[in-house]
Amino acid sequence: MTQLSPSDIRAKIRRGEITGETSRYAPGFVQLNLAIIPAEFGDEFFRFCQMNSRPCPVLEMLPAGEFSPKTLGDDIDVRHDFPRYIVWKDGEPVDEVTDISDIWRDDLACFLIGCSFSFEGELLRCDVPVRHIDLGRTVPMYNTNIPLHTTEHFGGNYVVSMRPMTPAQAIRAVQVTTPMSKVHGAPIHLANPEAIGITAIENPDYGDKPEIYDGEIPVFWPCGVTPQQAIRYAHLPFAITHKPGHMLISDLKNTSLLYA
Amino acid sequence: MTQLSPSDIRAKIRRGEITGETSRYAPGFVQLNLAIIPAEFGDEFFRFCQMNSRPCPVLEMLPAGEFSPKTLGDDIDVRHDFPRYIVWKDGEPVDEVTDISDIWRDDLACFLIGCSFSFEGELLRCDVPVRHIDLGRTVPMYNTNIPLHTTEHFGGNYVVSMRPMTPAQAIRAVQVTTPMSKVHGAPIHLANPEAIGITAIENPDYGDKPEIYDGEIPVFWPCGVTPQQAIRYAHLPFAITHKPGHMLISDLKNTSLLYA
Repeated sequence: MTQLSPSDIRAKIRRGEITGETSRYAPGFVQLNLAIIPAEFGDEFFRFCQMNSRPCPVLEMLPAGEFSPKTLGDDIDVRHDFPRYIVWKDGEPVDEVTDISDIWRDDLACFLIGCSFSFEGELLRCDVPVRHIDLGRTVPMYNTNIPLHTTEHFGGNYVVSMRPMTPAQAIRAVQVTTPMSKVHGAPIHLANPEAIGITAIENPDYGDKPEIYDGEIPVFWPCGVTPQQAIRYAHLPFAITHKPGHMLISDLKNTSLLYA
Repeated sequence: MTQLSPSDIRAKIRRGEITGETSRYAPGFVQLNLAIIPAEFGDEFFRFCQMNSRPCPVLEMLPAGEFSPKTLGDDIDVRHDFPRYIVWKDGEPVDEVTDISDIWRDDLACFLIGCSFSFEGELLRCDVPVRHIDLGRTVPMYNTNIPLHTTEHFGGNYVVSMRPMTPAQAIRAVQVTTPMSKVHGAPIHLANPEAIGITAIENPDYGDKPEIYDGEIPVFWPCGVTPQQAIRYAHLPFAITHKPGHMLISDLKNTSLLYA
């Protein structure tokens, strides 16, 4: 199963044979976050992402009416190729579905956004262990007090993902993730969680509980869940996102994002 | 004074007009640590440094009888061009002098070793403040429990230098210093000092006391004083080093060591 090609896995997802998390599939290939919003907000959201490119690195924007990215692989259709979607109304999640053909509209703009799965592959390749992968869990994610740059409608604070490491591993992780700015790049904070507004490291706002061992410090990266916070902040009348962890698997290799 | 060229400053040092610390002189130019040992131990010490290149990055070795490096600038003479030297007997410091012409012997090998002054210049250029420079003090340095790779005679533990920083500055400092491996490169540790055997961060083994502000973590780099610990460990019958902070100013620009 893990050795299937990205297009094989997308075909299974499109047929509804895979509806769960994607982190185990197609190691070495780029996976992507999704934000679909009314096109009237599209240009502003694109500017917002560009101003906040650490948490919101846009790999491709699709203008109104388009549903197939041109740079991420062959025959991708964002309406079917994520295993699970969240539907938002007035800035709140209202439904969870495995296909959005029936709610698709021609006035929607799509944003495909880089994901930390890519740099986790690089960390493992460079012998930096990733705790939540070892435990078979989802990465813990937290709301913070780090403000995003705002536009007319969009704003809020960074969401961050956290990986516990020894200090030596944290230093190596900065080195390994720095050249991968299209998938969040270097950490944004490490050590003291309170400094970025996290008061209960044991209770993440998203994902699974962490295990932090003696001698380790928490290392925080900008997180691709941040755009969902921006949608909430904007009280958008309608939006569709992927469900965290349930990503699009592209044909791009992680290494293609190194130094990119 | 700070605008004098490296060769102008070396001339003043050679005439005895400068005998103090060199950190303020010739910003942007590489400064060097010195270890002079009996040539019979020279090849072994060179291997030792190569095995421990994080703390002991050799920029040039001079074989027995030579006192002018070929790659570091014009008309340099290691017997006169450091402002202050320490003379060692049986692994212990016994004298401090400003010129070593009268104790020079033709059976000595010289090692010119990279110095953190180079990466501090890069840190400042990239807007990462360096506390001891702001305070006009010498960087605090500590003995650790991080073991060096050993050879027949040489061994001991890392000496590290410490710069307090916010976590965001520490992450940036890893990025800025990583491409400068000839002057110690990235930090070797950060946060918890006890983890590397430092029990009293307020009392450094060398240099001046630190000031660590709220919200800062200590960031530790391999230090060019480590070779002096190796000389002590080997109980060498005779050696000469520079006095910490009293360095050779070369004609090389710091930027020539980026990615080198």
